[in-house]
Amino acid sequence: MITKIEHIGIAVKDIKESNKLFEKLLGKPYYKTETVESEGVKTAFFEAGTDKIELLEATCEDSPIAKFISKKGVGVHHIAFEVDDIVLEIKRLQKEGFKMLNETPKKGADNKLVAFLHPKSTNGVLIELCQERTNKE
Amino acid sequence: MITKIEHIGIAVKDIKESNKLFEKLLGKPYYKTETVESEGVKTAFFEAGTDKIELLEATCEDSPIAKFISKKGVGVHHIAFEVDDIVLEIKRLQKEGFKMLNETPKKGADNKLVAFLHPKSTNGVLIELCQERTNKE
Repeated sequence: MITKIEHIGIAVKDIKESNKLFEKLLGKPYYKTETVESEGVKTAFFEAGTDKIELLEATCEDSPIAKFISKKGVGVHHIAFEVDDIVLEIKRLQKEGFKMLNETPKKGADNKLVAFLHPKSTNGVLIELCQERTNKE
Repeated sequence: MITKIEHIGIAVKDIKESNKLFEKLLGKPYYKTETVESEGVKTAFFEAGTDKIELLEATCEDSPIAKFISKKGVGVHHIAFEVDDIVLEIKRLQKEGFKMLNETPKKGADNKLVAFLHPKSTNGVLIELCQERTNKE
């Protein structure tokens, strides 16, 4: 079950410049940065009131973020929904006909298990499911 | 002050088809539809857990949604932040150097006062500020 919007991911060209911009916009500096080498991204997390915004900069040319920007330009890259049980939710969505980019959850930023849906099956929106990792995983 | 993400707006070509898709995705049908003729949009609102998703279909060729889709394709159109005082927030953002598309709030869907920021000043993201309307306005 989807419980809320966990964060919105925004593709940026220069995360240092964009960090300054989003600090002005949201009224607070980022509270965390994290590089996920396996995904080719450098991230910064901001509070937007009670919600979260994630900025994403590519760390290499074949990063999904570099490809996204060359195709669509900078801007909203994905919406992440928090789910209570990511394995069950993947199964439910597959039954409903959605195409998963990840059929089993993988480790993402911010201590989460994540799985993406193919944007072709979701009206052009890249959707991430995420669930907080526990010590067992 | 920004208090939370109020909703995410998604541009769609055929709202009837997209309503079916988002009902499957989010596990519930839309709870409200609204046409805002002055903005050239037909909208449907969905609960995403405790948050909201707004689908937007153009009602005419010169609708901002029609223009957005012809330029960028279907997908995320805007992020709406709830603010506690929209007039003060517009002033604060202008002082910080952001360009407003609306320098004074206007009536939007869902009983809100709204104002948009120019995406050129916000990393390519179209941002809406919104505040619940009271009887005075």
